[in-house]
Amino acid sequence: MSLKPISVVNSMSYEDFISIFGNVIEHCSLCAAAVWRDRPFSDVNSLHKSFCQFADQLPIGGKEGILRLHPDLAGRLAMSGGLTNESTKEQQSAGLNTLTDQEKKTMHHLNQQYKQKFGFPFVICARENKKEAILTGLERRLNNSGETEAVTGVEEVKKICRLRLHLKHSCLYHEVSFYWWIESQSTRRELAVHSQLRLKSRDPDKYKC
Amino acid sequence: MSLKPISVVNSMSYEDFISIFGNVIEHCSLCAAAVWRDRPFSDVNSLHKSFCQFADQLPIGGKEGILRLHPDLAGRLAMSGGLTNESTKEQQSAGLNTLTDQEKKTMHHLNQQYKQKFGFPFVICARENKKEAILTGLERRLNNSGETEAVTGVEEVKKICRLRLHLKHSCLYHEVSFYWWIESQSTRRELAVHSQLRLKSRDPDKYKC
Repeated sequence: MSLKPISVVNSMSYEDFISIFGNVIEHCSLCAAAVWRDRPFSDVNSLHKSFCQFADQLPIGGKEGILRLHPDLAGRLAMSGGLTNESTKEQQSAGLNTLTDQEKKTMHHLNQQYKQKFGFPFVICARENKKEAILTGLERRLNNSGETEAVTGVEEVKKICRLRLHLKHSCLYHEVSFYWWIESQSTRRELAVHSQLRLKSRDPDKYKC
Repeated sequence: MSLKPISVVNSMSYEDFISIFGNVIEHCSLCAAAVWRDRPFSDVNSLHKSFCQFADQLPIGGKEGILRLHPDLAGRLAMSGGLTNESTKEQQSAGLNTLTDQEKKTMHHLNQQYKQKFGFPFVICARENKKEAILTGLERRLNNSGETEAVTGVEEVKKICRLRLHLKHSCLYHEVSFYWWIESQSTRRELAVHSQLRLKSRDPDKYKC
């Protein structure tokens, strides 16, 4: 018998589920609240599929809304430390915290042009790109139509969501393994696995990895 | 010439719009981010209509998600002071902060039964009801089907949204009137109206009324 992280996800309370997965689509807890209905999930990929299906079913205003809830890349919020934990690490992984003054200026100018043209910010999966590719991509995508950019942006959101889900799922895996080990050392299995997991899963900081 | 609150809404930045209207549907900033696309609004009713249309266009998971993002009436969050400012005042207006111990017990029991049956919490426009009517309504609606309750719940969300919008719009009206009066006393019109309104609209606490 084994205890898989996805079975922990499937047995979570709604409050725990939202505290852990509420921001896998940035600032958009409605997505997690909606996919809650699709439990049980067979694995983390089926959980991701539910998020994607929900995003795809949204009317165009909702798709654009998802993009609008994203911060500018290397924007004001990033400079002031006001990003979510997830966004901070993602932007850092692309090297956006090491932009030169000239690169910052170019990024700001292109971000403004993009928002002016499309009415939502430029979104790209920062973990899959470096700052040079992001700047080039931003300049290139400025030539697209609004419809193309809404679709492209949401596809990038899905990539970000997949990576965030895998990271949180991986953290759960380590937690589960740890408490499973404790349990194997103990006759108090119910107490060790269930009460500890409940306590841990109620602390969203535990999953900000 | 007059400066109407709706024209202030129409000329707001996206950031100001979200900070003021982001919670007119509880914890669901995607709704405000989506309706932003429908500007300009002719009046507060057309703004409300946009919110309603977005909610109606959501797939069933999204409608249920909106309901799941609502707190229990007189629940754990209300007891611990963890509600949003809007919800706190709404629940108080229905007298839910003055429940007797027996009423609290009944409310808790019915809330649990409701969530167990439907997978989302009981939502009712607290400002349009008193605690007795809420308890009766909760008991009565427990007999409905899940489909009926999802629709009924979202209709209640629309009523809550309408009242929150009117309240925020009314606050804007007072702000605009105040600064319009200042402006009429001054030759520095641009400075008085625009710079002050910008400052005020950046402070969401100003609109928590």
